[in-house]
Amino acid sequence: MTNSDAALSQNLEFYRAIGARDLAAMDRLWARDVPVSCIHPGWPVVHGRALVLQSWRAILTGPRPPQILCYEEDATVYDGLALVTCEEELDGGSLAASNLFVIENGLWRLVHHQATPLMTRQEPSSPRGSVH
Amino acid sequence: MTNSDAALSQNLEFYRAIGARDLAAMDRLWARDVPVSCIHPGWPVVHGRALVLQSWRAILTGPRPPQILCYEEDATVYDGLALVTCEEELDGGSLAASNLFVIENGLWRLVHHQATPLMTRQEPSSPRGSVH
Repeated sequence: MTNSDAALSQNLEFYRAIGARDLAAMDRLWARDVPVSCIHPGWPVVHGRALVLQSWRAILTGPRPPQILCYEEDATVYDGLALVTCEEELDGGSLAASNLFVIENGLWRLVHHQATPLMTRQEPSSPRGSVH
Repeated sequence: MTNSDAALSQNLEFYRAIGARDLAAMDRLWARDVPVSCIHPGWPVVHGRALVLQSWRAILTGPRPPQILCYEEDATVYDGLALVTCEEELDGGSLAASNLFVIENGLWRLVHHQATPLMTRQEPSSPRGSVH
């Protein structure tokens, strides 16, 4: 598997973890050895592993945990980092997202996630996530 | 100047270029040797240098080019890349933004920008940009 494919695989695992409300998987997905940050729609920047995971815990255990599909993934591998962009399809609308990964212990781990609501979106060409 | 300070400096130059509608500076700011992408609020992902710069040209020469301030910058330098997060203050509201840079010809150059509207924001502690 190329580095790019491995990053896309971890990107799918991220959306699987959201859809399955799998907090343990979410914990494993985020890097431990370098600073991490996250920008949820409408929120200010969340800095630091503890607060980022706390934010996901609040979302995934809330009254309306997201049902999410992931489309249009694109991975670019830079020196030691991978940037995956994609679109997220949720009950409440669609978002454009960036997920930034570093290699840690042989696996791509998240260091940054940001999602921005889309005003409109085209029909998806190839759904790649699953609704839970 | 540390790598982190240099990335923060280029981040300010990015917002100066927006405020000054400086398309030549915007062109210089984006990397040439690696893939780039951009997520404007409400837009799908824009891929590729030509389309990214075309999108900025449309924004900066439009009927209401943005007047923008940049706050709360935070830079993290990973292997060969720098991620700067910040808040953007515009006429129409505030946004949380990520700007990802690589070193090219000795300068940090943008490979990715994403901005997400904030629902609310606290009073800024230290404005760092300028309104034009």
